[in-house]
Amino acid sequence: MDYKFSSGIASLKPSIIREILKSSGNTIPLAAGNPAPDAFPVDDIKKIVNDVLENQPILALQYGISEGYAPLVETLSTLAKERYGAYGENDKLIVTSGAQQVMSLACHCLINHGDCIICEEPAFIGALNCFRSHGARLVGVPLEKDGMNLEILEEKLKTEENVKFIYTIPNFQNPAGSTMSFEKRKAVYELAKKYGVLILEDNPYGDLRVSGESVPAIKSLDTEGLVIYSGSFSKIVAPGVRVGFVVANEKLIAKFTVAKQTQDVHTPLISQLIVYKWLTEFDFEAHINKIRDIYRRKLNLLCDCLDKEVGSFFDYQRPEGGLFVWAKLPDGVDMLEFVKKASAAGVSVVPGNAFLCDGDAPCDYVRLNFSTPSDEDIVKGVKILGEVAKTY
Amino acid sequence: MDYKFSSGIASLKPSIIREILKSSGNTIPLAAGNPAPDAFPVDDIKKIVNDVLENQPILALQYGISEGYAPLVETLSTLAKERYGAYGENDKLIVTSGAQQVMSLACHCLINHGDCIICEEPAFIGALNCFRSHGARLVGVPLEKDGMNLEILEEKLKTEENVKFIYTIPNFQNPAGSTMSFEKRKAVYELAKKYGVLILEDNPYGDLRVSGESVPAIKSLDTEGLVIYSGSFSKIVAPGVRVGFVVANEKLIAKFTVAKQTQDVHTPLISQLIVYKWLTEFDFEAHINKIRDIYRRKLNLLCDCLDKEVGSFFDYQRPEGGLFVWAKLPDGVDMLEFVKKASAAGVSVVPGNAFLCDGDAPCDYVRLNFSTPSDEDIVKGVKILGEVAKTY
Repeated sequence: MDYKFSSGIASLKPSIIREILKSSGNTIPLAAGNPAPDAFPVDDIKKIVNDVLENQPILALQYGISEGYAPLVETLSTLAKERYGAYGENDKLIVTSGAQQVMSLACHCLINHGDCIICEEPAFIGALNCFRSHGARLVGVPLEKDGMNLEILEEKLKTEENVKFIYTIPNFQNPAGSTMSFEKRKAVYELAKKYGVLILEDNPYGDLRVSGESVPAIKSLDTEGLVIYSGSFSKIVAPGVRVGFVVANEKLIAKFTVAKQTQDVHTPLISQLIVYKWLTEFDFEAHINKIRDIYRRKLNLLCDCLDKEVGSFFDYQRPEGGLFVWAKLPDGVDMLEFVKKASAAGVSVVPGNAFLCDGDAPCDYVRLNFSTPSDEDIVKGVKILGEVAKTY
Repeated sequence: MDYKFSSGIASLKPSIIREILKSSGNTIPLAAGNPAPDAFPVDDIKKIVNDVLENQPILALQYGISEGYAPLVETLSTLAKERYGAYGENDKLIVTSGAQQVMSLACHCLINHGDCIICEEPAFIGALNCFRSHGARLVGVPLEKDGMNLEILEEKLKTEENVKFIYTIPNFQNPAGSTMSFEKRKAVYELAKKYGVLILEDNPYGDLRVSGESVPAIKSLDTEGLVIYSGSFSKIVAPGVRVGFVVANEKLIAKFTVAKQTQDVHTPLISQLIVYKWLTEFDFEAHINKIRDIYRRKLNLLCDCLDKEVGSFFDYQRPEGGLFVWAKLPDGVDMLEFVKKASAAGVSVVPGNAFLCDGDAPCDYVRLNFSTPSDEDIVKGVKILGEVAKTY
């Protein structure tokens, strides 16, 4: 049988990162992006699940509604409003199967084949592939140290047809590690308003700030119902539970709910109950402080090692949080060759072109991660990178 | 903001069943479709989850791969081959977030806006809405007591453009309760082959046979890689865990895997581990026999009550399994009026037009469910239906 795939899926390639991780075997995984396992509240989750299956087994095992477990929706709505400044007057919230599903729902509900999505460049590969799989046309706007280049953003908004939304991770961006300044958040919002375009504000790392001052969400500026705000518990509880949420104008959420129903009916109740009880019965602020300490230590360890072992070979900005460091190689160094040399020497890093709208475009960056490897492996891995750098 | 939705989503209405259930308040829920809670292996699941969180907490809480937990994929592949006859030579299997996600993946990977899907008529509303949400054009083929009308199926295959697949629930169809004969399964497969069209074989109820002989899966005939086979644990373990699977030719599964990655990254590991350990460490055959006993009792209770209380007012075929009875009203009775009268009298049933490709087409059927209501409520509910019937 000669299969005829949908136009979006037909052109999609498997994730470069997955392929690298598959072929990188026993190398030190600076290419990964998993949260640190010692950041998972294992004991809390054990207690919660025991309690739930003892006292509410049918609730946990029966079908639920697509919007999510009602008490969790209420708790998250309050959290979105009070903690994240991300819940406006005409907004609603639904629970999603991870923040990835928010991207999927946004495409499902908003994208016709050929519609345009404006992305920060570089951008999260899981988002780019989701957008591509729906046949969206991706247009990149270069990311600077404090967010998107505003002139190019406006130029694209002016010239590109059928722009449906601007996709951004304003806090500790994946892969760039950068945080958008409040001035740029305001400017991006004003441009979206001017050109009648939505913003998909993806905030999976917001709670992982390890230094500096937090910046209000773009959603906090949203008086027009333009911002779709996506939150995740993958980094502050655990990714395996697959719980995220989306806040947006109630008209958008009505369609997202219908779309979610067609995708997976609802997010598993056990997962939802873990997050609900963790938020309401445990000291989650204390836990977030604990994981911030873990990530602060690991981020600084990676960066201190880089400064010591790799020196000026890497040009990078120390991030104020998140999981990633985005490092530029010296002019004239072939990035893919460097990645292969590093892998052969025992360290995997991600080639930066994986994060571009056009994955075949030239790129002299690599992405490094500090949450997955052990402290010992960070030290060893960066030493190896230093040795590879010296061959140039 | 004037939101512009994707063409598939723009035209989609919320599920009629959900609306009925919302407005049916305290009525007896013969309109529902939830599995019976006493069919959930609560004690097994408690033991499994305790064991997993005690001994493999990081496995259960960390990111997993999109294909599913490898030992579960292997176990399910063997099960699909040996128990369901649904795994061919060039096939692969991935774990999905319920069988609903199989429909979502099939549309995501195969449907461009305007492509045609041939559906049994009536058909499962969750499938119809999924197909509609991707902009598919739905073409119905009337369902007879032993499956689709083959002449009309061939006529549609001949005349409709861009038919991507035929959607069928061959065992204890939702809503019709009917089972496709082996002769028709062979004929449908041959027609699909002749016209170069795929088949989406959805089998959520296959294990819920309460009488008669089981019929081999269409997938068991599949020498050409035409059949996408969808299985579910919602009815034999519990729907709240949201675990299903799909078997298809490896080329299709490669695309489904990429699409799944963009939808929800992977199915929660706790859910996958529950199903894995339940299949490998517990006596699932004994459990399936137990739930068959429950459903046999409830199915026969509903049908016996219908025969006694409603008599010839309902024309229906006693199903050999599944969860539903599809009952035709006498000529001249206004179906929607009957549903409203029943609801006002205290029993909710689903108006049959919810299951048609064109939801506005005339329909003189209602769907009844026997798994959700208690035995007592079945008796009471049917008595009320009988009283409503007498008003005609």
